[in-house]
Amino acid sequence: MSTENQIVIFETTGFPNPARIRAALAEKNALQDVSFVEVDVMNLEHRTSAFYAMNPLGTVPVLKTPEGEFISESTAITEYIDAYFEGASLTGRSPLERGIVHMMQRRAESLVMDAVGTYFHHATDGLGPSIETYQCSEWGQHQKQRAVSGFEYFNRLLANRPFVAGEQFSMADITLFYGLAFADFAKLSIPPALAHLIAWRERMSTRPCFSQQ
Amino acid sequence: MSTENQIVIFETTGFPNPARIRAALAEKNALQDVSFVEVDVMNLEHRTSAFYAMNPLGTVPVLKTPEGEFISESTAITEYIDAYFEGASLTGRSPLERGIVHMMQRRAESLVMDAVGTYFHHATDGLGPSIETYQCSEWGQHQKQRAVSGFEYFNRLLANRPFVAGEQFSMADITLFYGLAFADFAKLSIPPALAHLIAWRERMSTRPCFSQQ
Repeated sequence: MSTENQIVIFETTGFPNPARIRAALAEKNALQDVSFVEVDVMNLEHRTSAFYAMNPLGTVPVLKTPEGEFISESTAITEYIDAYFEGASLTGRSPLERGIVHMMQRRAESLVMDAVGTYFHHATDGLGPSIETYQCSEWGQHQKQRAVSGFEYFNRLLANRPFVAGEQFSMADITLFYGLAFADFAKLSIPPALAHLIAWRERMSTRPCFSQQ
Repeated sequence: MSTENQIVIFETTGFPNPARIRAALAEKNALQDVSFVEVDVMNLEHRTSAFYAMNPLGTVPVLKTPEGEFISESTAITEYIDAYFEGASLTGRSPLERGIVHMMQRRAESLVMDAVGTYFHHATDGLGPSIETYQCSEWGQHQKQRAVSGFEYFNRLLANRPFVAGEQFSMADITLFYGLAFADFAKLSIPPALAHLIAWRERMSTRPCFSQQ
């Protein structure tokens, strides 16, 4: 299939941040409108000069636009997708919605997704010694505690609202959902007492963007 | 002055993230349309229950909307301000602009602002022992190296474009500008060889949003 004039997503199957982009595309009913290219992170393809030319930070996912520009960072890619495709907004429309969605997106990243990631990459074997070339175990353990606090924060929040940013599904739900999936993978379990968080997750798990990837 | 039905910004004078919000307001010609409340971080006002009720993460800045909602996280506040007030866009209009501005905003945060902040709070005396209650010196030193790499990255980028996100000024310029100011404060100097970064900074320093705060 030619990828000329089409959006291309460079991703790694099973990784949490690329999964966020598939979920955003699914919400916009646009999975069929883009093409996907697998990046073999386990064989260090993300540390080649070809990959650094697309993303100097060496992370997946990366989106290539039809005009040939590269966008990385999951929130930035989601902003692009949300503005490019029709459908319900993932990033908010009014000033208040935009502010709250971006606030919750950042909290879902810093308190869960990134905290779990730092724990995984620094305080466990992570992806193995060829990839985890620098580890700071103390910081990883500290971020584990931050992740647990994050679970508690979102549990309190979801006691009183159906979605992370309020009454509407948004990119912040996607980020929290895959942050919790990453926590499972890192063997960081959600305490059973966090009933609101667990109930939210069960509701989300039947949503097509998560269940039909 | 009554703050009913008006936007209120909770900030701490001299801190880099609140300065980002003042610059965004200045770009929108809206500094006179909001009121400011000082938060006395040095006396731990950000760790009171009253402050946590506004922002559970205990960080400045926080924006209170006219309807009484609280928005924290500097990017989220900037999104709100950019959508609320008229004027040139700080966050991009087309899908491509939005994607690139958000990508560069995140890079300016993670490679400079946040890296410098982690170095300052973890590997130096920071704001003193009553505020820096947990420090991980090894991680702070590692983030210092990340900040230096960040300076080099933006130097290369700014060799070929007038602004961080391309041809237009954006919130990413604001973030990088105050990230470098924070680096000065933390005594992390920009190597004189980084001529493009230094020239960009000199150009920026005469821009009214930075020079007239």
